Amino acid sequence: MTADRRSVVQRLFGVELPIVQGPMSGGPSTPALAAAVSNAGGLGSLGMGYLSPEEIRRDIAATREATDRPFAVNLFVPEPVEIDRQLVERTIALLAPYRQELGLEPQRFPERVAEDFDQQLAAVVEAKVAVFTFTFGVLRPEAIEALHRSGAVVGGTATTPAEAVALERAGVDFVVAQGAEAGGHRGSFLSSVGDDLIGLAALVPQVRQAVDLPVVAAGGLADGRGIAAALLLGAGAAALGTAFLLCPEAGTSRPYREAVRQARAEETVITSAFSGRRARGIANRFSTALAGRSDLPPYPVLNALTRELRRAAAEQGDASLLSLWAGQAVGLVRPLPAAELMAQLAAETKAAAR
Amino acid sequence: MTADRRSVVQRLFGVELPIVQGPMSGGPSTPALAAAVSNAGGLGSLGMGYLSPEEIRRDIAATREATDRPFAVNLFVPEPVEIDRQLVERTIALLAPYRQELGLEPQRFPERVAEDFDQQLAAVVEAKVAVFTFTFGVLRPEAIEALHRSGAVVGGTATTPAEAVALERAGVDFVVAQGAEAGGHRGSFLSSVGDDLIGLAALVPQVRQAVDLPVVAAGGLADGRGIAAALLLGAGAAALGTAFLLCPEAGTSRPYREAVRQARAEETVITSAFSGRRARGIANRFSTALAGRSDLPPYPVLNALTRELRRAAAEQGDASLLSLWAGQAVGLVRPLPAAELMAQLAAETKAAAR
Repeated sequence: MTADRRSVVQRLFGVELPIVQGPMSGGPSTPALAAAVSNAGGLGSLGMGYLSPEEIRRDIAATREATDRPFAVNLFVPEPVEIDRQLVERTIALLAPYRQELGLEPQRFPERVAEDFDQQLAAVVEAKVAVFTFTFGVLRPEAIEALHRSGAVVGGTATTPAEAVALERAGVDFVVAQGAEAGGHRGSFLSSVGDDLIGLAALVPQVRQAVDLPVVAAGGLADGRGIAAALLLGAGAAALGTAFLLCPEAGTSRPYREAVRQARAEETVITSAFSGRRARGIANRFSTALAGRSDLPPYPVLNALTRELRRAAAEQGDASLLSLWAGQAVGLVRPLPAAELMAQLAAETKAAAR
Repeated sequence: MTADRRSVVQRLFGVELPIVQGPMSGGPSTPALAAAVSNAGGLGSLGMGYLSPEEIRRDIAATREATDRPFAVNLFVPEPVEIDRQLVERTIALLAPYRQELGLEPQRFPERVAEDFDQQLAAVVEAKVAVFTFTFGVLRPEAIEALHRSGAVVGGTATTPAEAVALERAGVDFVVAQGAEAGGHRGSFLSSVGDDLIGLAALVPQVRQAVDLPVVAAGGLADGRGIAAALLLGAGAAALGTAFLLCPEAGTSRPYREAVRQARAEETVITSAFSGRRARGIANRFSTALAGRSDLPPYPVLNALTRELRRAAAEQGDASLLSLWAGQAVGLVRPLPAAELMAQLAAETKAAAR
């Protein structure tokens, strides 16, 4: 029996490999993917920000059917929502031609723009998950305590060293350092003087310098070289999202898969067009048409207004009106079953670090 | 005698360490800094894009006085310049209050906006330098051949895999992959669908995938962890610029040094306000005041129009009107003599890779 050579993060999560599957809410995340990653020795994640408490219970149970290893659940910390009726009406008009194209009825004024966060959180606490992560803000200390009491290890998402400090003060156990390369929504929650799009190579060492917490590196990593590099930079594990988009276990829609397969590194952009919050995805007709507009409602209002549109586009195979979240490592993605991909990532990481 | 364990890049440059000092034209670059880095076993660089042929000859000679090791020279590939008289007059008016603040006479219409590139290049060819790098475009093949005949190894700067392919076709010997984190001017020269600000962690493996050339990784690296990580990602050497700004050998002005010492990672921004070309630096009054303006002349016209302003601000200790180029690793910079810094970087790289 040799000494435990795992990083603090691996021991915290109770996993063999320093590889986390990023949550990827809103499609790609499935119980099958999370379970396959956890079964392979990594930490699978369920992106549950858009799910109802009932769906959360259902998907956690389904994941447990498929693995007895630890996995993570991710939720979005809510911001105060103010609904500007006029702005919503104008946005409905703006989106009407796209809906018409897909044969959708005119959008009705939304009754609800997001799930109730307290009810979502209660479902997670009740389910007693191994790892919980949150994005878009700082979870209030009482919620972190409730998660701790339920047995969860708790991590928050930081895009700057200052955000990592705010998370440390709130009592998290670890920080996910999200580099500018990352696909999907930016986790940024503190305004800053300038640019919060910090590249992972610069972000990880400076987050390590700012806080006394274990760090998971996320953004732009899709192979073992990247994982090994992230560990050298000071992370205890690497989170990969885009790398899993083409796994058969992922819920990635057919047109989304096709776009990922063809995309080059320089084709991803940061856009607020789909949700009202900045996110990185492959540029398409919708993101290009709405680029630079400052008259769109904020998250989660715009997200609710484009939901049916995105769903219909996915069903009809139209990648031009669909959010195609992907990170800058999109050119490295391999279409493999999750178990095979994990085995390759583990072998590559070992080879790179040798 | 043990086998040569150096990377292809180290052997190409004839250096002991996989560490390049980035060129940093327009102030920080000095013969003393380049020579100190080369004497310490790395590759020092002279950023000569703004220098006259005479100054180029003088500084190369001064560097040779201080080292007999290889060093690099960097020039900017010129773009066609069109001077729009009305736009220049409007810009002179826009800049007038800032000049007045510094006690400068009103700006006169510039006679010349940039040095003659062919004469600059002829001075470099004649000086027979070991390594030549260029930025902002693709050097024409005849120029690359002339440099080769003079004995130089030639590298170009790429910010996307597609730019690396264009450089490979032109016949360069290596590519500098400039991540979004990098301080100073973006080397981008091909328009792309979206965002050419690719983080280093995603850029290096995808440039390696796109071309069959050795790669130097640049951007966001300021310590040995970063250098070791860049090598794992597939680079043969790491280029550091910001890391050298506080060396006593650097030409960094006093207010610029003070700003670098205090800056945090999230305080750098990409701005075109100083030169007409996008560059990353610490946000200040000037970059903030001119942010988002689309009515400024392009590089090198704007660069010529702000030159005296920047020089006077530096002399008068006013960091608010001065270009403060710095990369996103600015929070990791150490105020050490170059030889000491190089020794620390080498020791850290070795320790990280162990």
